[in-house]
Amino acid sequence: MINVLVEKIKALDAPVVVGLDPMLKFVPEHVQKAAFAEYGETLEGAAEAIWQFNKNIVDHIYDLIPAVKPQIAMYEQFGVPGMAAYQKTVDYCHEKGLVVIGDVKRGDIGSTSSAYAAGHLGSVKIGNTICRGFQEDFATVNPYLGSDGITPFLDVCREEKKGIFILVKTSNPSSGEFQDRMIDGRPLYEWVGEKVDEWGRSCMGDSYSYVGAVVGATYPEMGKILRKVMPKAFILVPGYGAQGGKAADLAPYFNEDGLGAIVNSSRGIIAAYTKEPYADKFGAEGYGEASRQAVIDMIEDLKTIR
Amino acid sequence: MINVLVEKIKALDAPVVVGLDPMLKFVPEHVQKAAFAEYGETLEGAAEAIWQFNKNIVDHIYDLIPAVKPQIAMYEQFGVPGMAAYQKTVDYCHEKGLVVIGDVKRGDIGSTSSAYAAGHLGSVKIGNTICRGFQEDFATVNPYLGSDGITPFLDVCREEKKGIFILVKTSNPSSGEFQDRMIDGRPLYEWVGEKVDEWGRSCMGDSYSYVGAVVGATYPEMGKILRKVMPKAFILVPGYGAQGGKAADLAPYFNEDGLGAIVNSSRGIIAAYTKEPYADKFGAEGYGEASRQAVIDMIEDLKTIR
Repeated sequence: MINVLVEKIKALDAPVVVGLDPMLKFVPEHVQKAAFAEYGETLEGAAEAIWQFNKNIVDHIYDLIPAVKPQIAMYEQFGVPGMAAYQKTVDYCHEKGLVVIGDVKRGDIGSTSSAYAAGHLGSVKIGNTICRGFQEDFATVNPYLGSDGITPFLDVCREEKKGIFILVKTSNPSSGEFQDRMIDGRPLYEWVGEKVDEWGRSCMGDSYSYVGAVVGATYPEMGKILRKVMPKAFILVPGYGAQGGKAADLAPYFNEDGLGAIVNSSRGIIAAYTKEPYADKFGAEGYGEASRQAVIDMIEDLKTIR
Repeated sequence: MINVLVEKIKALDAPVVVGLDPMLKFVPEHVQKAAFAEYGETLEGAAEAIWQFNKNIVDHIYDLIPAVKPQIAMYEQFGVPGMAAYQKTVDYCHEKGLVVIGDVKRGDIGSTSSAYAAGHLGSVKIGNTICRGFQEDFATVNPYLGSDGITPFLDVCREEKKGIFILVKTSNPSSGEFQDRMIDGRPLYEWVGEKVDEWGRSCMGDSYSYVGAVVGATYPEMGKILRKVMPKAFILVPGYGAQGGKAADLAPYFNEDGLGAIVNSSRGIIAAYTKEPYADKFGAEGYGEASRQAVIDMIEDLKTIR
């Protein structure tokens, strides 16, 4: 799947992933009203609203981008109906030919980690039948528990030719509390990055590994170092746009081949209609068109640095 | 809820939590067959099997223990139907008067962390209506992202009088890869423990904080240190039984009041019927009775060290 992702990025000249993080406050009122009219102000109503919102956005952007990254927390908050909306979103994005990165940040050990890997990337055996759960193409994973948490994912990745992105340096202000602490002269995130490189070399695609890393756009100087520590890891870069990361900051995340990173924008795209220059032109009714224009602008913006 | 948990532990003299981690291989064949007869060898069939398995076990043990800890990965692997079985399990345990610790190990930042907190411990506003998702009493949380990942949970805990257990030192063999690395002369898990203490002092129950910690039974010498670092944190101790932790190892996790820790056993209880001395006496048909006897034996075992 990393090979597919790389080919799509090249074909579209767009190292861009759109975060489908449909907080209800981003969903225009007319979409919410229609959903609530059918299902009431219930978990089912909210799930319907975010699903319809997603669908319209995906319809407007699927031909421009290689991948989407639904943030499962935004669905999980609506309980079981929310999880059903997550599943529908994943399936629909696949129908539209998109690579799906499940932003699930799971992390556990042994058989529990295997269960997460099976449920999101692999399969489960039920009686004599092989069944599949959420079926994303990639998942994000937390490294705090060490190799015991990661290797079950690697096994599934090899079998299914899927991939993971491991949290290395996150984009948030307090990420330094633990991640930046110095260990034998180097920060923790570098040690994690080294393990990502090591884990990744055991499951290589053509030019990049099945094992990528998450490194926030908000720390470009660390991105530069981590790019060298993990030369074969694709870097998933959150924090562009709404969190303050700028295109100029992103150059260090790419390799000399112009590849090696994929930049995420969530609310900058899906809530584009709430902000200028898109609000005035498209309004809430045109939220799909606004997200399309925001994607086009983001792709152009990223061309300035590669 | 920490006050409720403490009172229940005292009343039952049982600092025990049973992990409801229903891997399909633990579910006796007759239970699987009945579920598959109704729903086929499908995700729905598996979900029904684990739900019926859980229900019978809970019916046999609910009066002996203060709390259960369903491991969400074991449900999530069966996709949306699995999540529905998780919800049914949580609700049923509440009906039976049990405290429910959702072993979800979520960890993210800002609005995403808020969404997880809302979905598992709090509520969401849908239109003008307050709705609730999974509704556990406690959730486990990963600290790798720092305060930005924790404070949204603290806000919900204060509002709802619920709690979290933060991963500090996990029970697995490779937990040391990052958690044991030395920072200014002390291991990372101690620094995390200090933050747990700090976070916890901002939301105190009567004698213990809403903020607890996960410290594996397999590292008693570290448990001893962490007990002192976080005197007000309840420690959730995995790794007893199947993972090798023994009762004698657990003394350091308790405070002088005989409280401060709750010990988890999962497969040692729910799969007791597969092992001696329970297999011979109860067999697969008596898996509920076997789990009851295993709980009684575990409670007695823990009395030897307090």
